[in-house]
Amino acid sequence: MRLSNYFLPVLKETPADAQIASHRLMLRAGMIRQESAGIYAWLPLGLKILKKIEQIVREEQDRAGAVELLMPTIQSADLWRESGRFDAYGKEMLRIVDRHDRDMLYGPTNEEMITEIFRAYCKSYKDVPKLLYHIQWKFRDEVRPRFGVMRGREFLMKDTYSFDLDEASARAAYNKMFIAYLNTFARMGLKAVPMRADTGPIGGDLSHEFIILADTGESEVFCHADLVEMGAPGPDVDFNGDLQPLVDQRTALYAATEEMHDAAKFEAEVPDGKRLSARGIEVGHIFYFGTKYSDAMKAMVAHPDGSTVPVHMGSYGVGVSRLVGGIIEASHDENGIIWPDSVAPFGVGIINLKAGDTDTDAACQSAYDALSRAGREPLLDDTDARPGGKFATMDLIGLPYQLVIGPRGLKDGKAEVKVRRTGEKHELSIDDAVARLAEGAFAA
Amino acid sequence: MRLSNYFLPVLKETPADAQIASHRLMLRAGMIRQESAGIYAWLPLGLKILKKIEQIVREEQDRAGAVELLMPTIQSADLWRESGRFDAYGKEMLRIVDRHDRDMLYGPTNEEMITEIFRAYCKSYKDVPKLLYHIQWKFRDEVRPRFGVMRGREFLMKDTYSFDLDEASARAAYNKMFIAYLNTFARMGLKAVPMRADTGPIGGDLSHEFIILADTGESEVFCHADLVEMGAPGPDVDFNGDLQPLVDQRTALYAATEEMHDAAKFEAEVPDGKRLSARGIEVGHIFYFGTKYSDAMKAMVAHPDGSTVPVHMGSYGVGVSRLVGGIIEASHDENGIIWPDSVAPFGVGIINLKAGDTDTDAACQSAYDALSRAGREPLLDDTDARPGGKFATMDLIGLPYQLVIGPRGLKDGKAEVKVRRTGEKHELSIDDAVARLAEGAFAA
Repeated sequence: MRLSNYFLPVLKETPADAQIASHRLMLRAGMIRQESAGIYAWLPLGLKILKKIEQIVREEQDRAGAVELLMPTIQSADLWRESGRFDAYGKEMLRIVDRHDRDMLYGPTNEEMITEIFRAYCKSYKDVPKLLYHIQWKFRDEVRPRFGVMRGREFLMKDTYSFDLDEASARAAYNKMFIAYLNTFARMGLKAVPMRADTGPIGGDLSHEFIILADTGESEVFCHADLVEMGAPGPDVDFNGDLQPLVDQRTALYAATEEMHDAAKFEAEVPDGKRLSARGIEVGHIFYFGTKYSDAMKAMVAHPDGSTVPVHMGSYGVGVSRLVGGIIEASHDENGIIWPDSVAPFGVGIINLKAGDTDTDAACQSAYDALSRAGREPLLDDTDARPGGKFATMDLIGLPYQLVIGPRGLKDGKAEVKVRRTGEKHELSIDDAVARLAEGAFAA
Repeated sequence: MRLSNYFLPVLKETPADAQIASHRLMLRAGMIRQESAGIYAWLPLGLKILKKIEQIVREEQDRAGAVELLMPTIQSADLWRESGRFDAYGKEMLRIVDRHDRDMLYGPTNEEMITEIFRAYCKSYKDVPKLLYHIQWKFRDEVRPRFGVMRGREFLMKDTYSFDLDEASARAAYNKMFIAYLNTFARMGLKAVPMRADTGPIGGDLSHEFIILADTGESEVFCHADLVEMGAPGPDVDFNGDLQPLVDQRTALYAATEEMHDAAKFEAEVPDGKRLSARGIEVGHIFYFGTKYSDAMKAMVAHPDGSTVPVHMGSYGVGVSRLVGGIIEASHDENGIIWPDSVAPFGVGIINLKAGDTDTDAACQSAYDALSRAGREPLLDDTDARPGGKFATMDLIGLPYQLVIGPRGLKDGKAEVKVRRTGEKHELSIDDAVARLAEGAFAA
């Protein structure tokens, strides 16, 4: 993409009302624009990142064997009356009356609707297990939306639902999501720690939150320090095999959110020097809730023994739009955002130090073509802004690598590569610079 | 994908309340489920097709130079008060009051919001032209939703907006979309005819609808028969060049929707034998409306001559979810849907005639692996259903090619390939069959 054809409205001033780094940086980098309280338009740069994150989430769901569908945003209130949550949900649910005076709502979550879909088609033990997910906009009418996309009202969420014949099978589904989430967050460069969590209004008796650590985190968390550095199992996990040992390895170590924290247990179980207390950001949450919804909504299947039983269910959420903010909280410096390669909106930023100069333009064009062919999705700053402004913008939007081309270096056939994360600079022949960027040679 | 791991709830009976072919077939093929009047869940098969169509639309927008962003579904009523449309839009607009008693709405279209975004950042002639699009769910509270996704309430739409300094530049943007739409629909195997259209409540003075012909079309259309067979310009068009000749070539021939039809002109301009009157389905609509919104909402830019002028705007819509139904209307037979290769949810359906038979299972697995590696996205029916049911399901869901593997053929190393569109069958050595399917040799 050429910047002159793009729409990247970066801001020079820091917005006064943005309290945390990710909110400030997303506004300054022209990623989002607030349209109403807690409701954002995703400008082109922000949308590209959102889609990369969404795609990683999708791929890891698919790898774990979950099947994607898409439920609508607007739901009938009747469904929620069946589960008893229409009244229970309170003012966070955005309630709507349509032109025929029917009570509707903007879905804040989808347990009811997916249960309705399941029960319509699945009647037998042969129809389970089922593991279904969707990635859809949700709405929660927060009384005080804040922190940009971290606590917005309209937000993008991936939610998976599992349906199983019994608790043992349901726990296997739970474990699949547990492991898939570790892999998902690791691919985004995040260190996410699973923590036993309160199940809250959604109900159920087994639940973990996946928390990333950041100074600006919304809540305090406590865990064994080894959990933070424990790697994800990776893509070669056999999701049809027994995942319990991989799960146990993580749940054996102490980790708890503020609500679940037990100070005495923390001190007893975690050796001195390994006790980590920090601020955390929730980016995923998984629940096993048994037959809570299948009982209420009559999602029953024929059991091989001849009886009819309610299915055991779980739900598994990832805050896709929230992750954009979460990654920034975990990865930025005073100059701006630092995107991990996997979610970077463009792979390389090319800075033309003298747009309009024939040789510089030609060298930039040639680098742009080569990096495009190599699949690096370059962004070429071909505008007539001054070099200082171009450097600042590139640092602000956080592309992992910058290729700086100007007439002075070109006289010697040279260009500069800057690695955004470390700040290190390499002066190279322009061919070398392009070739090495094309093959990803500067990646950490 | 293995069918045993998938969620494909096909229906044996024809749903009684579905009046048109696409609605019936989408329900029967397990593509959608109605959740409320005019509101559908997209089951896995339906979602796959929706996403393929969405991606074609996106790629052709990108090729034409449009830049993608994403506006939220929920909008503030204040924006629509600025344009005067909050009251004017009537009951089709889904109006919402949030917990703080603010008037909100579910966007039925986005002229107001995109104008707000444009005016916030673009102040100078240097900031135009801009061509911005998004693909987002919209809601129109139809008084009588019907025909499945063809006239639903919650629907997916691609809408593009152009901002230009003057009318000449705006018409160039209009032409870009005109040509991009021809290419978009052609890639989906559709013959779409641009027809001069009434501008309706959106306003403006130049507008074309893109209509595909189908017996079940919602309205009558009249055109020169040559327009139907005129090919699309194709991907090599230079979108920065002069597109007027390509547009003129099409607008020179008579084509009009019912509202714009002039019988006398039709007879005078179109020779006998070339006068086509048919039923049509609108799949795209483009408008140039000048300064209607920029005047009302003060979207002004500094002109090079020193004055400040309102920008000239256009909007350009494609009904993404509606296209799923539209393609089915244009491409089905008595046995089910016939997907064009470009939007098929799976490239090849593999039918295992005797699941559980060791040799047949192994041959199916080997074909599945080879076709997966070749990027053909096979769907393997590995269930224990009877062959007749498997054939019927494969025909119903409309995958372009079927590979039928059973013990009888395997004895001679043979398998059968069926081309869904023509019904032609090829008995081939299994290696040949797989190799030819892998390379797309049966494509029309």
